[in-house]
Amino acid sequence: MSNSSFKQEEHKLLVIPGPIEVSDDVLLANAHPSMSHVSPAFAPVFGDCIRMTREVVFTKDAQPFLIAGSGTLGWDLVAANLVEQGEDVLVLNSGYFGDSFADCLEAYGAQVTQIGAPVGGAPTKEEITKSLRSKKFKLLTFTHVDTSTGVLSDAKMIAETVKEVSPDTLVVLDGVCSVASEEIQMDAWGIDVVIGASQKGLGVPPGLSVSLASQKALEVFKSRKTRVSAYYASWAKWLPVMKSYETPPATYFATPPVQLIYAFHASLSAITKASPSLPERFAAHKAASKKIKDTLEEWGLGFIPLSRDASANGMTAAKFPAGLKAPDLLPKLLAKGVVMAAGLHKEVKDMYFRIGHMGITVTDPTRGDVDTILKALKESLTEAGLEPPPSMAEAVLELKVVL
Amino acid sequence: MSNSSFKQEEHKLLVIPGPIEVSDDVLLANAHPSMSHVSPAFAPVFGDCIRMTREVVFTKDAQPFLIAGSGTLGWDLVAANLVEQGEDVLVLNSGYFGDSFADCLEAYGAQVTQIGAPVGGAPTKEEITKSLRSKKFKLLTFTHVDTSTGVLSDAKMIAETVKEVSPDTLVVLDGVCSVASEEIQMDAWGIDVVIGASQKGLGVPPGLSVSLASQKALEVFKSRKTRVSAYYASWAKWLPVMKSYETPPATYFATPPVQLIYAFHASLSAITKASPSLPERFAAHKAASKKIKDTLEEWGLGFIPLSRDASANGMTAAKFPAGLKAPDLLPKLLAKGVVMAAGLHKEVKDMYFRIGHMGITVTDPTRGDVDTILKALKESLTEAGLEPPPSMAEAVLELKVVL
Repeated sequence: MSNSSFKQEEHKLLVIPGPIEVSDDVLLANAHPSMSHVSPAFAPVFGDCIRMTREVVFTKDAQPFLIAGSGTLGWDLVAANLVEQGEDVLVLNSGYFGDSFADCLEAYGAQVTQIGAPVGGAPTKEEITKSLRSKKFKLLTFTHVDTSTGVLSDAKMIAETVKEVSPDTLVVLDGVCSVASEEIQMDAWGIDVVIGASQKGLGVPPGLSVSLASQKALEVFKSRKTRVSAYYASWAKWLPVMKSYETPPATYFATPPVQLIYAFHASLSAITKASPSLPERFAAHKAASKKIKDTLEEWGLGFIPLSRDASANGMTAAKFPAGLKAPDLLPKLLAKGVVMAAGLHKEVKDMYFRIGHMGITVTDPTRGDVDTILKALKESLTEAGLEPPPSMAEAVLELKVVL
Repeated sequence: MSNSSFKQEEHKLLVIPGPIEVSDDVLLANAHPSMSHVSPAFAPVFGDCIRMTREVVFTKDAQPFLIAGSGTLGWDLVAANLVEQGEDVLVLNSGYFGDSFADCLEAYGAQVTQIGAPVGGAPTKEEITKSLRSKKFKLLTFTHVDTSTGVLSDAKMIAETVKEVSPDTLVVLDGVCSVASEEIQMDAWGIDVVIGASQKGLGVPPGLSVSLASQKALEVFKSRKTRVSAYYASWAKWLPVMKSYETPPATYFATPPVQLIYAFHASLSAITKASPSLPERFAAHKAASKKIKDTLEEWGLGFIPLSRDASANGMTAAKFPAGLKAPDLLPKLLAKGVVMAAGLHKEVKDMYFRIGHMGITVTDPTRGDVDTILKALKESLTEAGLEPPPSMAEAVLELKVVL
């Protein structure tokens, strides 16, 4: 056989908010033969990944860190490298992942102030301004898309507010569930750190922590008064390695996940060099999100995010119709070959389910994933006793027939 | 095509001391379609990996931790979870990786005492005994096989010495370059922590930190007086997750590297359930190591380890013949399709090269890797101006012809 004809095994359609469906090309790259992690053959592949990572979040000079680990490791990178014992940090909390980021920061000795919000909401500009005026914060963190609630925070507004009120405060964007599915203008908006992971919008298997630090963040790091109190998460260890992969020969700190870097290279090449373009990619996510959310709304389902404007474009957190719970719906979807996720936010866990619509599921229309999602949902809701009204498309069709 | 016929791309033979050659089965598993990390389909695969990991190091009840990360992350796990600020730790140093482990322990606030050794050596029983008597150490660490020197430390002797002199001291074995290529009797010898990684003897792509903690180590962890000063590396976060994968439903802390877990499952199944058996596997590593080292010795090459008894069975650190350096040999090997590694230990870096002979390279004789290694080496040495004497095998053959 030729591997160019590699097709992944038949499987259920995975439409949870990460991991997401991965293309055959990317999976084949993940089966790359073993290579030396410092070889002249591999180093430029890693170097390309670093350069393309910058393109995805529109930065010219931020420093990417590509490290074997889960998205969670990105929090440790921020906490270990940018916070010293007892320093004040402001966490904007829009769900489960805000709680966790705060927990991580505290583990490293930060004094954390949180601004909460009702479930489905996010802190407002007024609240952020007021907090920033109350004391000097070393950094502010927010979850761009909180995977537990599907709330999309207004990254541009947050960064602008910090620049207005407390320009020395670093702005940290947790983009694990937003990088490559939502627009992030790192330089133009003034974001100092972006934290991401491979298995969501970036369209790669899980296992790679993908983060970037602005030159300003690196300056703050370099002016630390105390030693970084971690080792694997220390930028001091990784910085020379990342620079060496961009300008080989490669140096060594810890063995990178070689195959996953090949897979990341395949996906980044598709994202930054092929069709759709990055702006088209964001538009495709918005269009798919609108279609799914409009249809669900038409069927009478509500959402966890309190407003459509503050809803993610790569996922949907939808409330079950009255009387239904996860066991009434998710197994029916599974039987139709579609995997969605249950709720995660502890206060409303049993009230909702989550659909992921990122990456090839929305950028490759030949797959028909969005239609598959809606068809399976409609059938499952019907089986569960709900009678969804005809979809808009069907309504139009019926109208035409009548006319 | 059927994926059952998957063959990895043609490539140069990778015989560095990790990453190592990976089988087609394992690479195909690494191209598994995306799966939910908490699904009933995936959880038992993770659970099996946990159980099989125990088998590889002969433990009944130690707790495996399978976490996205490099081998280096294992040091953080030990330092973050088992050491509190200012506690004394004894590091047995047999090369580069001893220096690094000490550096990691200090990052987390340990007071590190090191016992060094001449390059190629390891601390003796007398030196260890003396140090253990000098003060109370929370734990002792040693590098089972130091990848920089190829020195094999006597794990059983070290553990016995600790039990005799300071039985409360935890024994930490860095097995990144020894797990599955050297025998480790975790329970019988009394090892409290084994640190490993996927890309060496375990025969899987890099990106998975594989470690185990004895029940005694977990008790010490649970009796900490202070909070763990890390987040991603915190056993407090991972312990319930690992237990949940063994007894589903699976719970969540950070997304595991799903495809790599499938790959690990494929390799562990071969290691623990197929032929060769584990004892045969260790014997195969010893036999291949002996063949390679005997041949090199016959050609007049020396080794970095000061004694053959204290040499790893999964790798060889051989000195260049007088007058030769890495640029005289490694490119010639590369041109013949064989990738070996340069020196790493800073004091002798330019004096030697390293050959990895772990995993399928030694357990699958149909590949002929060991012969390929020796043939390429002999030809390259000859091209470099050295005239290796006929190998033992050839000498026997010539003798037979004469008779």
